[in-house]
Amino acid sequence: MITVLKSGVSEQQRNQLIEWFEDQGLRVHISEGEYQTVLGLIGDTSRIDEELVASLDMVDTVKRISEPYKKANRKFHPEQTKITVGDVTIGDGSLVVLAGPCSVESEEQILEVAEKVKAAGASILWGGAFKSRTSPYAFQGMQAEGIGLLLAAKKATGLPIMTEITSAENLALYEDVDILQVGSRSMQNFELLKQLGRCNKPVLLKRGISNTLKELLMSAEYIMAGGNEQVILCERGIRTFETTTKNTLDLSAIPALREMTHLPILVDPSQATGNARMVEPMALAATAAGADGLIIEVHNNPGKALCDGALALTPEQFAAAAEKLRKIHKALK
Amino acid sequence: MITVLKSGVSEQQRNQLIEWFEDQGLRVHISEGEYQTVLGLIGDTSRIDEELVASLDMVDTVKRISEPYKKANRKFHPEQTKITVGDVTIGDGSLVVLAGPCSVESEEQILEVAEKVKAAGASILWGGAFKSRTSPYAFQGMQAEGIGLLLAAKKATGLPIMTEITSAENLALYEDVDILQVGSRSMQNFELLKQLGRCNKPVLLKRGISNTLKELLMSAEYIMAGGNEQVILCERGIRTFETTTKNTLDLSAIPALREMTHLPILVDPSQATGNARMVEPMALAATAAGADGLIIEVHNNPGKALCDGALALTPEQFAAAAEKLRKIHKALK
Amino acid sequence: MITVLKSGVSEQQRNQLIEWFEDQGLRVHISEGEYQTVLGLIGDTSRIDEELVASLDMVDTVKRISEPYKKANRKFHPEQTKITVGDVTIGDGSLVVLAGPCSVESEEQILEVAEKVKAAGASILWGGAFKSRTSPYAFQGMQAEGIGLLLAAKKATGLPIMTEITSAENLALYEDVDILQVGSRSMQNFELLKQLGRCNKPVLLKRGISNTLKELLMSAEYIMAGGNEQVILCERGIRTFETTTKNTLDLSAIPALREMTHLPILVDPSQATGNARMVEPMALAATAAGADGLIIEVHNNPGKALCDGALALTPEQFAAAAEKLRKIHKALK
Amino acid sequence: MITVLKSGVSEQQRNQLIEWFEDQGLRVHISEGEYQTVLGLIGDTSRIDEELVASLDMVDTVKRISEPYKKANRKFHPEQTKITVGDVTIGDGSLVVLAGPCSVESEEQILEVAEKVKAAGASILWGGAFKSRTSPYAFQGMQAEGIGLLLAAKKATGLPIMTEITSAENLALYEDVDILQVGSRSMQNFELLKQLGRCNKPVLLKRGISNTLKELLMSAEYIMAGGNEQVILCERGIRTFETTTKNTLDLSAIPALREMTHLPILVDPSQATGNARMVEPMALAATAAGADGLIIEVHNNPGKALCDGALALTPEQFAAAAEKLRKIHKALK
Repeated sequence: MITVLKSGVSEQQRNQLIEWFEDQGLRVHISEGEYQTVLGLIGDTSRIDEELVASLDMVDTVKRISEPYKKANRKFHPEQTKITVGDVTIGDGSLVVLAGPCSVESEEQILEVAEKVKAAGASILWGGAFKSRTSPYAFQGMQAEGIGLLLAAKKATGLPIMTEITSAENLALYEDVDILQVGSRSMQNFELLKQLGRCNKPVLLKRGISNTLKELLMSAEYIMAGGNEQVILCERGIRTFETTTKNTLDLSAIPALREMTHLPILVDPSQATGNARMVEPMALAATAAGADGLIIEVHNNPGKALCDGALALTPEQFAAAAEKLRKIHKALK
Repeated sequence: MITVLKSGVSEQQRNQLIEWFEDQGLRVHISEGEYQTVLGLIGDTSRIDEELVASLDMVDTVKRISEPYKKANRKFHPEQTKITVGDVTIGDGSLVVLAGPCSVESEEQILEVAEKVKAAGASILWGGAFKSRTSPYAFQGMQAEGIGLLLAAKKATGLPIMTEITSAENLALYEDVDILQVGSRSMQNFELLKQLGRCNKPVLLKRGISNTLKELLMSAEYIMAGGNEQVILCERGIRTFETTTKNTLDLSAIPALREMTHLPILVDPSQATGNARMVEPMALAATAAGADGLIIEVHNNPGKALCDGALALTPEQFAAAAEKLRKIHKALK
Repeated sequence: MITVLKSGVSEQQRNQLIEWFEDQGLRVHISEGEYQTVLGLIGDTSRIDEELVASLDMVDTVKRISEPYKKANRKFHPEQTKITVGDVTIGDGSLVVLAGPCSVESEEQILEVAEKVKAAGASILWGGAFKSRTSPYAFQGMQAEGIGLLLAAKKATGLPIMTEITSAENLALYEDVDILQVGSRSMQNFELLKQLGRCNKPVLLKRGISNTLKELLMSAEYIMAGGNEQVILCERGIRTFETTTKNTLDLSAIPALREMTHLPILVDPSQATGNARMVEPMALAATAAGADGLIIEVHNNPGKALCDGALALTPEQFAAAAEKLRKIHKALK
Repeated sequence: MITVLKSGVSEQQRNQLIEWFEDQGLRVHISEGEYQTVLGLIGDTSRIDEELVASLDMVDTVKRISEPYKKANRKFHPEQTKITVGDVTIGDGSLVVLAGPCSVESEEQILEVAEKVKAAGASILWGGAFKSRTSPYAFQGMQAEGIGLLLAAKKATGLPIMTEITSAENLALYEDVDILQVGSRSMQNFELLKQLGRCNKPVLLKRGISNTLKELLMSAEYIMAGGNEQVILCERGIRTFETTTKNTLDLSAIPALREMTHLPILVDPSQATGNARMVEPMALAATAAGADGLIIEVHNNPGKALCDGALALTPEQFAAAAEKLRKIHKALK
């Protein structure tokens, strides 16, 4: 970390600051220029609050030159993390496809979707039970009953399952769920992350719509610091000024995260675009950019289930997309 | 709500959609143009999911022409909401100043700050006990013990107190707290909002750094729909491309929210700018724009308490700012 | 266009507004609801200024339901536009690669790059002569001399050339240039666009870093309204809160623009990411998403030409990337 | 400037880079850490292209610790710049109000507005002649004739005038205009800025809707580097995800720019909010935050002149707002 002092700072003020840095276990290198003095801090600066140092009257600017995340950092853990659920491994160079409906609606529906996506090549079943909705008047999901139906589909098809957790209070309900999904609105629900850090279960962490990649890794660090290192990252679109698409899918997050971290990286083109017609091209693009897998919304009857299915692909559209995804993935091997 | 159909939609498809709208209790007006058909939906459309209708193949665009929030909406509740804690009323045209430290650190500290901000004109004491920090390695606050110290300061000074709640599990600890603060990262923690909707206590709801004013009102609606109508809104800066300030304080939120809702509106210039030198000018600006009050970070010794105080005003700086705030508020009466 | 009136608007005010709309050649449908009156405007609303109507005291909201661009609109021109320069056609389903250096530096350099990118499969040579730089102290390009060197390279290799135009005053210099490039900072330089509308030459229009897709099409419309319909669009990254990459490449612009317009769509992964290591994965992603072509920065010696080359691929890296691009493009046929 | 090298960089590579920095006239301080080597560059780094150094394979990160703008920088020119036109001085602690119509429409209109805003306390007349419109089909202004009418109003009232210049080709028409306005879409039209750098006339430079404060100052630097140091800055709202207001007025730009630069700072609340009802509260807020002046749109008959006037205040609304502005400005003295 580099701290640049303003011109005119007294020696006493400067020494007070240096002493404080040394109390935090850091060594301080001083280099004096014509207009400013630069302090170079050497040691573990991950506990230093950059913004607060920057706000000191005597400080001109502060620049962090090493990252504040440790366990998620590829620099210290160069080897790629692989996460296995059932027969499926995420992060080993294969392309893993998770598919299912935004909301579990009935046993019939989830069984039909599970069988069809399995047949089309999906290897993990995904479905919504506890839903996080902007409006208090919108359908909040089948909740505990929905988890039960997902478990029934798991039993029937053998597919591992993933579903969202919105509060640590419900953790007991997720015992047989294979991957716990943290939604984008919960990415900085630190109380929840701390609890998941004490679980022994893979966690899929979705990027918040206005969170940087560094913040995503700091949230992964919350889970890993608690002892649970099975974290999967997921890019799902960020909020920008553009309104043509629901969010702006940030695919450069894939090569950027690949350098920053050893954790696997998935992409959710359904939530990002909010538009069934854009799901296939964006899924293909994510695959070409090197994603470890995809989350795709599929519904057995988007026509009838107007409220939720319309965003989703039909099983037939999903099968056609999955076929192309395999071609792209193979072409790049 | 207006739904524009694509050209070439069959009559059968159209009728199916109209039927579905009618099943939701809406009346549908059809108006046919040369290139498109427009369906006007009349009735309570707050339960209709706009994005999902938009994603239907036959639909070109959907436009909402009435707001999906009801209880927070000034249209249906023209009278301004006033919220009283102790002797203080927020929303009655006065300027209410909340002040205190980002983190409660000791009994000595919080008592000194409380007395000094009271003397300078603050009417509510604010302080952090449960902290929401980006890094798992950063100080997480004094937690339950911190709430105890705030209550001691309340007893000593008579000031009502406000502090943040990060999880509904801790609700019992807040029994004697006067205002429950929901931080910006929790603005869409809907599980927490639902629980607060069942409390009989004022809630201060901070806008998320990337949430629209409509989403802020939808989150207020979550609390109000549960039966608790004592909601105070707070603008505290949004995330933009500009990096000179920590966030971009959106003061036009004040006149905009004034038209949209009857709830009181506070502004937090400390968190928004992240810079003690900008707190006074932004507090003055918020007052001139018509805010009902301000939240200002004050620390008794920002020099020593390097970790947290540096962002804050000293009690002397706060007293000087409070004096100017009163002048501005008076000049506009 | 839909105009929603506030409740309490007098009949006289309403009639005045309706009259004004009718004076603009529109028919007005009135539909009265309990809380509001909705005016539906039928006819060519492209000349109506939406924001200004919205700001009228009596108006609650205005919603445009047809697009204000006509000539660029796929609705009115369903057939895909193809643009031919030399032997190359852009927009016919093939993948066209433009490659070259950010700045033309010498005859030797541009000839070497031109030959190598041609050998690797590029079909148009791109290079910078008039440069648009944030700092007045930065190198502003070789200007007229640089165009001369590009023409020499065109002669030597037979490749058509593209280079940026920053001011209409220099138009005479571009007589033998095949494609005129409008940079992202000039996307709304309407004086320049008007002049280019009078040229009989293909124009590549780069999206501004904070412009919406609709604004991009309105700028294309400026050129097309002047009579020049040979416009090629280019996505090159938008400005967001994320700072890990220079800009955020918005690849969902490809399927979105494909629906909105009949104009060809290119992608520039070099400028978008600002990082040579991310160019290949983003170029592959753009191809998989359906782009008509790519613009890639290539320099013969990025090591020596420190100032500009570092962002660029070496000819060898470019050849390797081009090989993969062809595989992806073929896999999707 | 600080350059952090990756671990594993060979001594030869490192020396090559150091040599290159020294060739640019810089001294290089080397400090070696466990995981990385840091190069401190001392001297004038304003010509070094930060992004390009960052993109070198051997480089981990680059951090600029001094600003790349010199003439606009308060560090090197601590004294506040004052700019005088006619009897009016901008930047001397007074509050200067510029007022007038978005478009000059007729002699009658501009004379009436000029007289009324003068009577209400405006000291500079502002009006649009060459208009920069998103749509090619929208009214492009009265152009040269409009400038003539502004000059007539200047003669009649004695008020200095300001109007926008969209192309350097028209410079001769502006001989008797007192302040040349560069619109936000032209903030990075560097060809125009270079020409204005050779004028001997004050230039008002509006911030681009997605430009940082540093970029605003770099554009001011373009004008000042040419020899014209009479530059006035203007904040007019930035583009964010929020859609309730046209743009988000960034009032923290006022205290931020005050520290960064010695140039005067104006605010345009009309363009920022796009809503006549928000102009007064935002003008008051800007004044309280310390702006040197305001630009306010005023039209003699917003009701009739539907197309442009609706955004504007009436002369009566303007007079009432100006009265309050003076009260705020006086209260803070």
